[in-house]
Amino acid sequence: MTAVLSDLETPCLLLDEAQMQHNIMRMQSRLNDLGVSFRPHAKTSKCPEVVRAQIAAGARGITVSTLKEAEHFLAAGINDILYAVAIVPARFDAALRLIRAGLNLTLLLDSVDAAAQLSAHGQAHGVDYRVFIEIDTDGHRSGIAPEDPLLLAVAAALTTSESSGTVKAGAHLAGVMTHAGSSYALNTPEALATMAEQERAGCVRAAQRLREAGHACEVVSVGSTPTALSARNLQGVTEVRAGVYVFFDLVMAGTGVCTPREIALSVLCRVIGHRPETGWIITDAGWMAMSRDRGTGKQAHDWGYGQVCDVQGTPIAGLAFNDANQEHGVLHWQGDPQTDLTARFPIGSLLRIVPNHACATGAQHERYQVLAAGARIKASWPRFGGW
Amino acid sequence: MTAVLSDLETPCLLLDEAQMQHNIMRMQSRLNDLGVSFRPHAKTSKCPEVVRAQIAAGARGITVSTLKEAEHFLAAGINDILYAVAIVPARFDAALRLIRAGLNLTLLLDSVDAAAQLSAHGQAHGVDYRVFIEIDTDGHRSGIAPEDPLLLAVAAALTTSESSGTVKAGAHLAGVMTHAGSSYALNTPEALATMAEQERAGCVRAAQRLREAGHACEVVSVGSTPTALSARNLQGVTEVRAGVYVFFDLVMAGTGVCTPREIALSVLCRVIGHRPETGWIITDAGWMAMSRDRGTGKQAHDWGYGQVCDVQGTPIAGLAFNDANQEHGVLHWQGDPQTDLTARFPIGSLLRIVPNHACATGAQHERYQVLAAGARIKASWPRFGGW
Repeated sequence: MTAVLSDLETPCLLLDEAQMQHNIMRMQSRLNDLGVSFRPHAKTSKCPEVVRAQIAAGARGITVSTLKEAEHFLAAGINDILYAVAIVPARFDAALRLIRAGLNLTLLLDSVDAAAQLSAHGQAHGVDYRVFIEIDTDGHRSGIAPEDPLLLAVAAALTTSESSGTVKAGAHLAGVMTHAGSSYALNTPEALATMAEQERAGCVRAAQRLREAGHACEVVSVGSTPTALSARNLQGVTEVRAGVYVFFDLVMAGTGVCTPREIALSVLCRVIGHRPETGWIITDAGWMAMSRDRGTGKQAHDWGYGQVCDVQGTPIAGLAFNDANQEHGVLHWQGDPQTDLTARFPIGSLLRIVPNHACATGAQHERYQVLAAGARIKASWPRFGGW
Repeated sequence: MTAVLSDLETPCLLLDEAQMQHNIMRMQSRLNDLGVSFRPHAKTSKCPEVVRAQIAAGARGITVSTLKEAEHFLAAGINDILYAVAIVPARFDAALRLIRAGLNLTLLLDSVDAAAQLSAHGQAHGVDYRVFIEIDTDGHRSGIAPEDPLLLAVAAALTTSESSGTVKAGAHLAGVMTHAGSSYALNTPEALATMAEQERAGCVRAAQRLREAGHACEVVSVGSTPTALSARNLQGVTEVRAGVYVFFDLVMAGTGVCTPREIALSVLCRVIGHRPETGWIITDAGWMAMSRDRGTGKQAHDWGYGQVCDVQGTPIAGLAFNDANQEHGVLHWQGDPQTDLTARFPIGSLLRIVPNHACATGAQHERYQVLAAGARIKASWPRFGGW
């Protein structure tokens, strides 16, 4: 297929493929230089074509946030996947099915109960689950602090037994992983480098404690887009994970790790009305198209529901996306009050909105319209959702 | 199918069918009493089964926010649809296709340009488009103020001509419509009744001006859930629209038009971890399952990402849903600090989260798990998304 932007139904999601490739190469070459493997997080794209580009550039396996992602990406030929959300018993059977279908699946947990239950499930079904323990290095969510006695108790609860002769079954510790998600709230290179070092040091320390207690803890997995792009050394780390870097977004621009021009994703919309007396322009991209993510609301520059650009992707100074209803975007003109908005932005004219948060905006859409040179749409890549 | 809650993959969307029926009957009998037609907004459910229940209760036609909704509901047998977002030329052909497929479709516009272009399209294709003019009665979004001279100019730009002998083609004015969306920000019966009267009076006044200018303006369509439930008289109004009432949500409870117990929708999730030292419980319902809608953030009671209930739907005092990542909900325990959270809410245990905004949370899911008496799941109703 090949189409031009004006052929597209709006709102829709545009993906600038050249910019995406640039972002992929930037992260991969950086991590190659730092001497660590890279395992991108596929929750951002939920799209096999995007993940294949990451693998082609050198990524070794992927990270997912749901078992549905694991299932879809296994079907797309990706056979090394880390499910980076703590596993619960209700999902053990689904994980087992994926392993039996040929997936090299790594599971995550951070409790003695889950470790014991998973070990028992493996023993009962003749499989040896590969497990990472989640480490908390910034207090923002889940995981075990590096110095917490619980760390060794969880590792000890991962047990195997002989099954059918000499094959071991149960669950074994393959590594530790952490995600310094609080890096999203930072905005200077120094603060980000400090957080990256905190993330690295904490995860390496947890691995050290486990090794001292006699556990082989092969993998030390860290990462978030801001820390991955800010770490000055990754000594002791074996792999890095990052998700949103593949597209970038305004929140990432707010942290300073990219510029708005490096963002590969935008929402194409049409002007559907005007309120000249208030300086408003109404579009057909409301919160259903953008998501309700107001991630830049806490940053130095609040972009509202996104940065407004013309159809070529050039930012329009003075036009702010301040409000949104389900299928209405309300843009506020803050430029020259003499501007004839109806003439400059006639009904039906196209605009592009750069999103606050690529993961959230992407999830509102069923496909990417892939933008190639000359503003042509070269392909439509489906993405999946749900659980 | 019949299943119990513990059989369900989480997170998932639960719909309490008896409560939905109660909500449907409440609105329908109220509007029957007020002597007006009811045209529910299907953007909330995007689900044929829900809409069929609304029609069965007495609704006359539906309202939609996208032409994709119109297409899906026409396929489901609904043939009277108002597309309540201003039409733009890029969608004229799609509207024409729906009309030719048998849909009684009403379009909306609020500009001379759109009226003239639509009339020309109708004349060129031998169809007479049925049009409402959008009226602004609260300044919150789009539409023309009742006293604005533009109102008569738009009506005058809707023209028909003889086509193929005696059949008229073009576009004709069938009515006016308004939506007092700012009612969502109110929270007393008096303020809501005043807003309902403002919505009614403004829309009736616009119709009066059009009729005085010689236009047959048959339909006067008003509505939002809060105003529909608060209007004390609807003189001059011929139809009312409302969407979210079918499920209700915490934002509606915040306006006072329902109680949290009347909300028919919830998200079922599982506990996946604990942070006893901070009093946190981690679940598998993050913002992907809840949406990023923080609509109660501006209300008297801020529910965070939703109200936490046990698996029976009974609110759990002291457990607040304060933070969310993509696939992680972070609940904060604010009850007795001596409570053993791990024992009370073990890994894998089920919770139900009542949403802030039913339209936004619903859109994150591909189906409703329909909850019947005895906590049994009696059916799974698909819902669609996208454009």
